[in-house]
Amino acid sequence: MKKEIRILGIDDMPFSFGDEKVDIVGVVMRGGTYLEGVLKTTIDVDGTDATQKIIEMVEKTKHRKQLKIIMIDGIALGGFNVVDGYEIYEKTGLPVITITRNKPDMKKIKEALKKHFDDWQERWKIINRKETEEIKLRYPAYVKYFGLSKEDVEDIVKLSTIRGAIPEPIRVAHLIATGIKKGESRGRC
Amino acid sequence: MKKEIRILGIDDMPFSFGDEKVDIVGVVMRGGTYLEGVLKTTIDVDGTDATQKIIEMVEKTKHRKQLKIIMIDGIALGGFNVVDGYEIYEKTGLPVITITRNKPDMKKIKEALKKHFDDWQERWKIINRKETEEIKLRYPAYVKYFGLSKEDVEDIVKLSTIRGAIPEPIRVAHLIATGIKKGESRGRC
Repeated sequence: MKKEIRILGIDDMPFSFGDEKVDIVGVVMRGGTYLEGVLKTTIDVDGTDATQKIIEMVEKTKHRKQLKIIMIDGIALGGFNVVDGYEIYEKTGLPVITITRNKPDMKKIKEALKKHFDDWQERWKIINRKETEEIKLRYPAYVKYFGLSKEDVEDIVKLSTIRGAIPEPIRVAHLIATGIKKGESRGRC
Repeated sequence: MKKEIRILGIDDMPFSFGDEKVDIVGVVMRGGTYLEGVLKTTIDVDGTDATQKIIEMVEKTKHRKQLKIIMIDGIALGGFNVVDGYEIYEKTGLPVITITRNKPDMKKIKEALKKHFDDWQERWKIINRKETEEIKLRYPAYVKYFGLSKEDVEDIVKLSTIRGAIPEPIRVAHLIATGIKKGESRGRC
């Protein structure tokens, strides 16, 4: 794995009950640690456009040609706007990793989808396209990945993590997303 | 100079003709290179509240106690909302550096102030409280500084610069400010 690899990390801004739209933040980091660019787009809260909006964000950025991989904070953004990592990989040709520090509770997610969405089966199908797997580096993390091997995932997470379990592109996207929305960044992914 | 020193870097978002308000972005970086926090506040375009808003942002952040220095992109934010580095230093106890890559044209600035503001003399007085000085590292940069020596300024700029002439806290604040406002970050400070 090349040390200078360009990674796009994506996280969403916090939102409040009643909000219809929410911004998502993308950061382009070289070697996973040197910030080269910041991107923003907007999706529907609990909508179905996250996948498409991410593809558009990737295709139109001036960093497009340098990008080698996409990392996303979790399997959905802006509530339950489920991200289809497979489709992003297919359309952009860039491997995709979704990553969380805590193990996702699939039973709870399914129940919430059933309760709130008529189209819950479609959302659930996207989530279930791939198993969540655990990777164990210094700390455990939970990933789905598309277009690359588990070994590659571990290499990339390792080379882009400075402290803790969360790679810099996700950590920095999270700090920006919360800081810009709330006035001060907070918490972890 | 301690290598792990916490620096707050500040830049403003782009704004359009007719905008009354503009957001400013603060980034807290450890050792000038590791992002620890993102702050945001809002000032009046061409107003007179930048100094006060920066003091408030500094005083209320959870990073307050760790902060050792403030760096600001230039002598004014949000148009001609002039930043009084001396007052920020006096009120917060933190040394302040304002820095630009290009030499400010003081004659032009004075003319613009005279043309657009009844209170131009007050703004000009703040700008003129301190001479702009050149520092020469790998590239030249132009600074005003309050509460520290020129030697300290050079040390801090050096330890917080990875590439080019602009320290990371300013470079990163600029990428965030432009990326969030425009959808994609751009240009240099």
